[in-house]
Amino acid sequence: MKHVVIVGGGFTGITAARELGNKPDIRVTLIDRKNYHLFQPLLYQVAMSALGAGDIAEPLRNMLSRYQNITVFKGVVESIDPEQKTVHTDFGELTYDYLILACGVKHHYFGHEEWEEFAPGLKTIAQATEIRRRVMEAYEAAERTSDPVIRKKLLTFVIVGGGPTGVELAGSIGEMSRHTLSKFYRNIDPKLTRIFIVEAAPRILGAFAPELASRASRALENLGVQIWSSSMVNNVDKNGVQIGNERIEASTVLWAAGVRAVSLGSKMGAEVDRSGRIIVEEDLSVPGYPEIFCGGDQAHFAHHTEYPLPGMAPVAMQQGRSIGKNILNDIKGKTRKMFRYKDKGQMATIGRNKAIVEVGRLKFDGAPAWLTWLLVHIYYLTTFKHRILVLMQWGWSYFTFGHGARLIVNKEWRFYPDKKPCTTQNEKPD
Amino acid sequence: MKHVVIVGGGFTGITAARELGNKPDIRVTLIDRKNYHLFQPLLYQVAMSALGAGDIAEPLRNMLSRYQNITVFKGVVESIDPEQKTVHTDFGELTYDYLILACGVKHHYFGHEEWEEFAPGLKTIAQATEIRRRVMEAYEAAERTSDPVIRKKLLTFVIVGGGPTGVELAGSIGEMSRHTLSKFYRNIDPKLTRIFIVEAAPRILGAFAPELASRASRALENLGVQIWSSSMVNNVDKNGVQIGNERIEASTVLWAAGVRAVSLGSKMGAEVDRSGRIIVEEDLSVPGYPEIFCGGDQAHFAHHTEYPLPGMAPVAMQQGRSIGKNILNDIKGKTRKMFRYKDKGQMATIGRNKAIVEVGRLKFDGAPAWLTWLLVHIYYLTTFKHRILVLMQWGWSYFTFGHGARLIVNKEWRFYPDKKPCTTQNEKPD
Repeated sequence: MKHVVIVGGGFTGITAARELGNKPDIRVTLIDRKNYHLFQPLLYQVAMSALGAGDIAEPLRNMLSRYQNITVFKGVVESIDPEQKTVHTDFGELTYDYLILACGVKHHYFGHEEWEEFAPGLKTIAQATEIRRRVMEAYEAAERTSDPVIRKKLLTFVIVGGGPTGVELAGSIGEMSRHTLSKFYRNIDPKLTRIFIVEAAPRILGAFAPELASRASRALENLGVQIWSSSMVNNVDKNGVQIGNERIEASTVLWAAGVRAVSLGSKMGAEVDRSGRIIVEEDLSVPGYPEIFCGGDQAHFAHHTEYPLPGMAPVAMQQGRSIGKNILNDIKGKTRKMFRYKDKGQMATIGRNKAIVEVGRLKFDGAPAWLTWLLVHIYYLTTFKHRILVLMQWGWSYFTFGHGARLIVNKEWRFYPDKKPCTTQNEKPD
Repeated sequence: MKHVVIVGGGFTGITAARELGNKPDIRVTLIDRKNYHLFQPLLYQVAMSALGAGDIAEPLRNMLSRYQNITVFKGVVESIDPEQKTVHTDFGELTYDYLILACGVKHHYFGHEEWEEFAPGLKTIAQATEIRRRVMEAYEAAERTSDPVIRKKLLTFVIVGGGPTGVELAGSIGEMSRHTLSKFYRNIDPKLTRIFIVEAAPRILGAFAPELASRASRALENLGVQIWSSSMVNNVDKNGVQIGNERIEASTVLWAAGVRAVSLGSKMGAEVDRSGRIIVEEDLSVPGYPEIFCGGDQAHFAHHTEYPLPGMAPVAMQQGRSIGKNILNDIKGKTRKMFRYKDKGQMATIGRNKAIVEVGRLKFDGAPAWLTWLLVHIYYLTTFKHRILVLMQWGWSYFTFGHGARLIVNKEWRFYPDKKPCTTQNEKPD
């Protein structure tokens, strides 16, 4: 009986687990900080009130309950000892025969971690809720104030980073301010909302073909989004951002720029790139440790590709499947198969009927792209129930021009703001 | 043009606002701490993962947008000067011709406010999320531990208070542990969950007829709920509750006992009962101030009734309507109509196919009562979209015996844990 430990329940972890589920002579332990798998590509829709958290997240236990050989623990992996084949967690030690690292990335402020306070990123449900709170609170405060300077600042939103997430955030704020919010406020005109995308590269959506990116730029501009490319952010504070000698006064700044892999890889002694990602072998194993695999955003895979593979759900899923199959190959005494990424293309959405799709040499935008985006995302949403619920919410929003529940959930629960939950604290004697 | 200020967007506030919406010579300002109206009777379902927050909450702006004469502010009323007819808020002063107080109640720990940390109540979405987190974290921690004593404590839940909320919480935990969770855990048997209702009175559901309450007790016992009646809680700490000389070790304690009206009424100088509720006149005005009304949970109305009217949604809605109509009567020069409560009965649900309904002398339980409960709650859910979404979620849960998204949303966003949101802070110069 081989023991496979999977760290992380994202696309890589869950796909690998399913590959190994109910297979003979294998038991699997999956560990995640959270108790749910998150459909990250739609997280910005939670931030923008179009979907609820429950629509895009599913408890890991539900997803894996049919596999009798898989145990799920909600816990934190603190370190890995690859020589002893041991994982140290906050609830004890686990030894493994195979280890799969799939811990993903978190936001990276290029050495200015103090900016996070003023410019939250979008990786978790809590961050999405916080972004929603900030955006909606800005409109509420603008409605209350009578000072035009303060009002202008409150109605200014800066998004740092012009990749798909930055574009999706900017597009949603633009659409919400133009189409949804106007009838709800009496003292302000939400159409006056100013939205900026600040991108260091010469253009936004650098991973897409230039003509598609420029079509996306035009669609964004129609929603009132101003694109500042070739613009480096020098400073972020609670009143706005500094870009060289220029300054934008904004009460809401969102971060969609750099990411960095979690430190587990470098702490283990594996070779990492400058984003902290583990540089993996062609079979996705960690050099020197054939029993340790790494996939998804945490892995730097650059075999037979010009650039390292990007941090996208399709890459993560294909890698999870490959890792699972290679562990099965090992156990059966077969040789491992090298990983090859099957490029299924990429897409980004800007708003209602506006998206861009690039599949190989095929490029298209507008309503057909938007419909493609919609169908692909609905298809990949894991459970049947989620698909129907999300379709319904979107259908409702499409026909009513409404965004879902723009609830501001205040952090009014005042105990244990930074501590661990008391149930786990209780486990240790005082 | 008469200015009506409404404090609170609950059932009373929203009903009164609708009564006054688009009426000539009236402008209305509604102020609430939150930006949404909450369908409180279903809040326990959010706590128990059966529904998401967005299913039972609707932004106040959406609900009132069709009334051009209503302005909504998200803000906090700090005090009221009834002589100057002025409301002091955190965003400035407002003068009124009519004032409607509908601020509701919060939990009350009988002088032991320090218990709140160990036994959260259920009045807000944040509290529901916190209760969900504690309940689900307890199961997660039980799955991780190997100590049988700690495991037993983790699988013990105490609910203080045997009114409808306490019964609904206990019933849902019972049902979840018996029917839903068992297939998801490998190391624990969720069926071993112990659930206690601790009630000071001789029986639970004191507002219901004794035979109905005892049928509810039997249904609860079938779900493994132990009812300790005539039991006063002497102490609550992080390891459990003390009841006289007896003690229950539990890592999760929930509070569904006392409530107390917010202090705005007593601070204003109005006569209040010992729960802080304003003792109102027969037309729901505050004695001495015919232009100030009070309704809903915050009001103590005891005209022509044996007991003061209970804190229930139907009472609050009828009172809101009555207040709105009487303000219109005043403006038209007509005489006010005294408030009479039309008793539409009461109900409580225990679980799947288990509920009790009491309408006048008609009393029934079991599946017919549960169906009645379902239809009434669906009917009163405010918007068409919510009704369909909730029906779908419930339908799904009913046929799959599943509970919705049991997501534990950690409070990982670490900035401003106790401060006001930064957007409003920005309004004040440093």
